Amino acid sequence: MSSKQVSFLENLKKVLPDESVVQDELVLSENSRDFGQLSEMPINPIAVVFPTEAQQVQQLMQLATEFGMPVISRGAGTGVSGGVHVLGEAVILNLSRMNRILDIRPDDEIAVVEPGVINHDLNVAVAKFGLMYAPDPASYKMSTLGGNVATNAGGLRCAKYGVTRESVLSLDVVLADGRLIRVGKNTFKGVAGYDLTALFTGSEGTLGVVVRAVLRLRYLPVDERDVSLLFPSLEEAVHGVQLIAKARIQPAILELIDHATIQVLDKQYSTNLSASGGAMLLARLDGYGAAREEEAIREVFADRNVVLSSAGSSEATQLIEMRRTSRGDTKDDAYRTGEDVAIPKSKMVEYVHRLQAAAKQERVDLRMISHVGDGNLHPTFSVEPDDVGDPLARLHRAVESSVRIALEMGGTITGEHGVGLIKKDWLPWEQSADVLQLQRSIKSLLDPLNILNPGKAI
Amino acid sequence: MSSKQVSFLENLKKVLPDESVVQDELVLSENSRDFGQLSEMPINPIAVVFPTEAQQVQQLMQLATEFGMPVISRGAGTGVSGGVHVLGEAVILNLSRMNRILDIRPDDEIAVVEPGVINHDLNVAVAKFGLMYAPDPASYKMSTLGGNVATNAGGLRCAKYGVTRESVLSLDVVLADGRLIRVGKNTFKGVAGYDLTALFTGSEGTLGVVVRAVLRLRYLPVDERDVSLLFPSLEEAVHGVQLIAKARIQPAILELIDHATIQVLDKQYSTNLSASGGAMLLARLDGYGAAREEEAIREVFADRNVVLSSAGSSEATQLIEMRRTSRGDTKDDAYRTGEDVAIPKSKMVEYVHRLQAAAKQERVDLRMISHVGDGNLHPTFSVEPDDVGDPLARLHRAVESSVRIALEMGGTITGEHGVGLIKKDWLPWEQSADVLQLQRSIKSLLDPLNILNPGKAI
Repeated sequence: MSSKQVSFLENLKKVLPDESVVQDELVLSENSRDFGQLSEMPINPIAVVFPTEAQQVQQLMQLATEFGMPVISRGAGTGVSGGVHVLGEAVILNLSRMNRILDIRPDDEIAVVEPGVINHDLNVAVAKFGLMYAPDPASYKMSTLGGNVATNAGGLRCAKYGVTRESVLSLDVVLADGRLIRVGKNTFKGVAGYDLTALFTGSEGTLGVVVRAVLRLRYLPVDERDVSLLFPSLEEAVHGVQLIAKARIQPAILELIDHATIQVLDKQYSTNLSASGGAMLLARLDGYGAAREEEAIREVFADRNVVLSSAGSSEATQLIEMRRTSRGDTKDDAYRTGEDVAIPKSKMVEYVHRLQAAAKQERVDLRMISHVGDGNLHPTFSVEPDDVGDPLARLHRAVESSVRIALEMGGTITGEHGVGLIKKDWLPWEQSADVLQLQRSIKSLLDPLNILNPGKAI
Repeated sequence: MSSKQVSFLENLKKVLPDESVVQDELVLSENSRDFGQLSEMPINPIAVVFPTEAQQVQQLMQLATEFGMPVISRGAGTGVSGGVHVLGEAVILNLSRMNRILDIRPDDEIAVVEPGVINHDLNVAVAKFGLMYAPDPASYKMSTLGGNVATNAGGLRCAKYGVTRESVLSLDVVLADGRLIRVGKNTFKGVAGYDLTALFTGSEGTLGVVVRAVLRLRYLPVDERDVSLLFPSLEEAVHGVQLIAKARIQPAILELIDHATIQVLDKQYSTNLSASGGAMLLARLDGYGAAREEEAIREVFADRNVVLSSAGSSEATQLIEMRRTSRGDTKDDAYRTGEDVAIPKSKMVEYVHRLQAAAKQERVDLRMISHVGDGNLHPTFSVEPDDVGDPLARLHRAVESSVRIALEMGGTITGEHGVGLIKKDWLPWEQSADVLQLQRSIKSLLDPLNILNPGKAI
């Protein structure tokens, strides 16, 4: 440890409670990375700070500014883009102990939370008022709301309810120099000044540290109907998505699962779905219109070659639960990469065909699930480690192709995972030099010493 | 005209077509202001520039940068906050001739538009595909989408569908120095880099000039049911809002109209609504759930002292149309001021009581309509010009009280109109010095010469 680091930690321990500054090797190692699979190995941070109140975050940032010490803030670390990986000197600011739900105001339909509250815990707490917090990333049982805000997390229900940004009304943010500001408003509408709330949302800890959030809640649906639809082919399943749209049905959840993923589900859950279909749609209809929307879906597909789950059965609901965890359970590793592009909805079939061609060319296995309701695809590429002909290079080329093709079709390199470290090289493929420069300027404005999660996101 | 101004215009006319640079007195005067009622009289701009393509906007901004010439961009000028008032040397950039719908992609559920397209025209164009553009400010038949983006416009339907920001996916923006950048994405989801799209949205022409927008469309509802509910008192009407929420009904439109406004409607439309109620709610239920939501509302109020419009009648629909134009028709003048606060939904009764007390104390007439579904209130204050005891000073104090009380209750000074000029003095009541400074720094970053709508919004 350098003398600067020693001195920084000495000063930190003077102002923070003993139990807040942890240097245990295991804790350092656990906090050195997220779920992202990076070729470069993370190193240990010099310490992990666990604040319990905003003032401690301010004290940390004041010292970090004084010492020029990089600070990486994080929650549960369930991100998959390496957004909190430690690659150089850094202290980790772990906000998981700031986990109080400060207020639930059912009549205002808002909740006020600290950043360490688990997404699912908020939903449990507000359900008794007939309310829900809508954004539901796959990690919702583990990930923190602060992390959700930092990545502008998506999930299954955003087809209908929007992503995290649409549920964030106000943020308390500790700036790089330790000042605490409050941006946004407590109301659903509000246009006073610039939209700084949206600027901080999704900025991956590079512009400030969120220490309190006012979140909009939605009505817990009075009714939910789940339908699964097995199609002979992926093409027909994608066409089915257009038919649902043309019937002006707005599902809360609309997932597409390809044949390879159906086979994985069959293996995991001892089902035999792959025998009856080439691709599957899973739709959840909710609210007062759920029953009529379910009827409408059944009418749309009545005379088509589609196997629908029977009305009232729990089959589709179970499938949605299986789907929710189908990528969460199988983490990426060096030989398996899950991607996250989004493309305009009409381009789905063409995209998949080109993706399949790219995978075939590189002899890489491909399976795919998609939040097809909003054009967000999660293809998973994998190779056998002991395969001939540099499998890792082929994997890498297939993944890059998937991103390039998405961009050629007017898509984006990341629908909901964030840029982190893993997608940083691709950002200039999507954004012009002027836009990149503008983002760097905004970063410099808010973090002139470049101590907030340096090197990430932009 | 100063020699700088002469030289600027000479240079401008060299690069732009003759018909694009207008100095006709009537046109100058028409373009000197919006619908906002400011005590200070606007002056004429030195010219009004009507570009027909983005490149002309770039050429204008290059020259403006060279000459340090302030540029105020505008659309139809239906704003009510003085956001495009001319108070000093300025050229007006009127984008109304850039009014092409560039593309409608029904399967992608997006439209690509130039900024001068009228909100309503886009809705007419996309209706044939079963789609709609959701944000519907009162001015939707006149106002431009560029103006809607500049003010992050709201409207009636945002109770369910969100404000303009939720429908803006991507923007082409000409920067102060004439560079053209594209921010955002063509997809519903996308988290690459900072949310610059949201930063430009609602920035009131102070950060750049929007020359193209990719807008998200929604499904045109398959069913719409309108219900009017007349309550004995305002208190009971507001309680009714909570009962609707507790039944987890999400109206597309939920408007509250007070007794004084009902009397105005009675006078305008020769109705006799005020005889049967003290306050009115107007609800529009839409989509597949419309019929069931209407049933649910009728159940909620079955045993209460509430007069509901009969099922299947057009009464409530007519009332919603009357309501849509009830403030648009009566523009503000020196003796009448319409306000635009938003407050947390639970505070509505308390707010109205305090508002009434403030109006009474200042002997000012008060009537009020409210987008009550999202807590956005539009009280209108008025005095008789020939009344004794400085009526304008009393009017001014009552208006200021309405804003202060909203802030005391955790509200905002502007729910949807924007800050413009008229609310600039109130912004420091809502936002801290640090937040104001941060916004000014962002402004300086994007507009170092302070030539983009200087003195507005922040």
